[in-house]
Amino acid sequence: MIHSSAKIGNNVVLGEHVVIEENVEIGDDAEIGHHVIIKKDTKIGNRVQVGDLSVLGKTTSKNKKMARKPGAALTPLVIEDDVRIGCSTVLYRNLLLKQGAFVGDLTSIREKVEVGEDSIIGRNVIVETNTIIGRRVTVQTGCYVTADMIIEDEVFIGPCVSTSNDKYMGAGNYQYQGPIIKRGAKIGNNATLLPGITIYEDAIIGAGAVVTKDVAAQRTAVGNPARIIK
Amino acid sequence: MIHSSAKIGNNVVLGEHVVIEENVEIGDDAEIGHHVIIKKDTKIGNRVQVGDLSVLGKTTSKNKKMARKPGAALTPLVIEDDVRIGCSTVLYRNLLLKQGAFVGDLTSIREKVEVGEDSIIGRNVIVETNTIIGRRVTVQTGCYVTADMIIEDEVFIGPCVSTSNDKYMGAGNYQYQGPIIKRGAKIGNNATLLPGITIYEDAIIGAGAVVTKDVAAQRTAVGNPARIIK
Amino acid sequence: MIHSSAKIGNNVVLGEHVVIEENVEIGDDAEIGHHVIIKKDTKIGNRVQVGDLSVLGKTTSKNKKMARKPGAALTPLVIEDDVRIGCSTVLYRNLLLKQGAFVGDLTSIREKVEVGEDSIIGRNVIVETNTIIGRRVTVQTGCYVTADMIIEDEVFIGPCVSTSNDKYMGAGNYQYQGPIIKRGAKIGNNATLLPGITIYEDAIIGAGAVVTKDVAAQRTAVGNPARIIK
Repeated sequence: MIHSSAKIGNNVVLGEHVVIEENVEIGDDAEIGHHVIIKKDTKIGNRVQVGDLSVLGKTTSKNKKMARKPGAALTPLVIEDDVRIGCSTVLYRNLLLKQGAFVGDLTSIREKVEVGEDSIIGRNVIVETNTIIGRRVTVQTGCYVTADMIIEDEVFIGPCVSTSNDKYMGAGNYQYQGPIIKRGAKIGNNATLLPGITIYEDAIIGAGAVVTKDVAAQRTAVGNPARIIK
Repeated sequence: MIHSSAKIGNNVVLGEHVVIEENVEIGDDAEIGHHVIIKKDTKIGNRVQVGDLSVLGKTTSKNKKMARKPGAALTPLVIEDDVRIGCSTVLYRNLLLKQGAFVGDLTSIREKVEVGEDSIIGRNVIVETNTIIGRRVTVQTGCYVTADMIIEDEVFIGPCVSTSNDKYMGAGNYQYQGPIIKRGAKIGNNATLLPGITIYEDAIIGAGAVVTKDVAAQRTAVGNPARIIK
Repeated sequence: MIHSSAKIGNNVVLGEHVVIEENVEIGDDAEIGHHVIIKKDTKIGNRVQVGDLSVLGKTTSKNKKMARKPGAALTPLVIEDDVRIGCSTVLYRNLLLKQGAFVGDLTSIREKVEVGEDSIIGRNVIVETNTIIGRRVTVQTGCYVTADMIIEDEVFIGPCVSTSNDKYMGAGNYQYQGPIIKRGAKIGNNATLLPGITIYEDAIIGAGAVVTKDVAAQRTAVGNPARIIK
């Protein structure tokens, strides 16, 4: 089903059973896989590739227990030129994927997020709301990127890294704040980052470290709790 | 394809390419996304919302190496009123989602599981068989909830928490037993819980902790292995 | 859509909206779920079962930042007899699933990988490229199996285990090497394995351990960093 209001560029390849809702735009030379669902208002650039069974432009949902009520997402999902998107992804409204970004299979990214030019978001990654990811960042497979994070340019986040933004775990009047990861820092696989900490420029966090405090620029921290080793 | 035996209520919205197998019931005002597959016998309440590309009512599968043979699941998947289900979920037969529960995108929940009223199961969560989750529980994104667990009411489980139920890792005649998490306990992100331990009422487990023993009520445990700090 | 070149055996059950591209072969008595996408050249054996919404035979994708350029995958996805595949999986070209293997829901396995006879790959597992998995191996739910690993026969890997293959995290001229796990070793849940280490025969790694060095045969290692306890 392709809604009559859709604007589809030249040389676009559309798979079987694609659903395109109202007010969608797709640029030239884009390739859209089988069974892809493109929700209303989504904007897709030139030469974008979208894998099979992906959902583009989902509206945020909630139940009555949730503390954080999503507002109306007035902005659509915008996918710039040359972006590559895997299979079975779930990408929300009010998300901006900048030119050349890569999003792996089975990954989901929520609203109020921006992914910078040429950055790589691996497979099976979840990115929560209100987080900014810079340019040429790598977020490897299996990472959990919490809400309210800032990830600067050229950061490298290894596989399965876990972050959090809620110090009191649902119990306090805490202003949610995810970790801040400054330019060029590297985080080892399966590290755990606590709410509100800053990893400064070019710092290195060892695999499996549990980081409870800030780590200064160019330092290396390992262990549980993480301590500086050089 | 909608099987002729399906009973579909008033004002139900069905997406494109929905498959509804025999003996399915859907209540009034439900919304079913595109490409959703509703397997035979599934019961869906009033005002339920189901995201695109979800599978509802899957039958358990196995191969010959598996120690635990799934029996026939005589009971269907039952989804009570006002439940919200994300995109690309895989929900099994013999699962009960109670009123107002929330299940995030890319989450899968197996047979012989119950999720209590208004509880939140985040995105990319896997819940194994024979586990009970109480009311107003939060299981955040990326958690692994093993088989044979009990999670009482008002528990908070942070992102990426990992649990296990098999002390001898496939090697012993161990009675499988997952962790028991008592009312109001809170578990930090990426914590690891060993088989058979109990986290008592209102205890707090720090992020990244590896919990090898019981934790008494209202105590806080951190580190690897976790020790009590207050 | 079923391409006219497809060779489909006797007694095959095909779900609704299945897409079968050119040059696909499916053996006798296979069952293919709804909305499954079978890409060109894929070979499927007898009695294979494929869950709904799976993608079989995906071609590798990339963006310009990626260090490792995938070559052309000349070999197709080959699925031998009696394999069981879950729902919403993403399986690549140049992957061999040997007889009787099991692949859970929401799992993705990349190119240049082999999974041995009767092995179990759980749900929500990601396997990267150029990794060999032996016979009768268990890789439990939520694991991340990095590239360039060797997992020998009868290994048991608990839930949520994380591995890595890049010592310098994108920064060095390091020859990528994932962990090597020798026959019969057992890895506890949420353990972290560093690049290039070897876990020798029948060794045991505790839950939550961070393994930075080789572990000798039949030894047990726990903690962060992991040390031998017996």
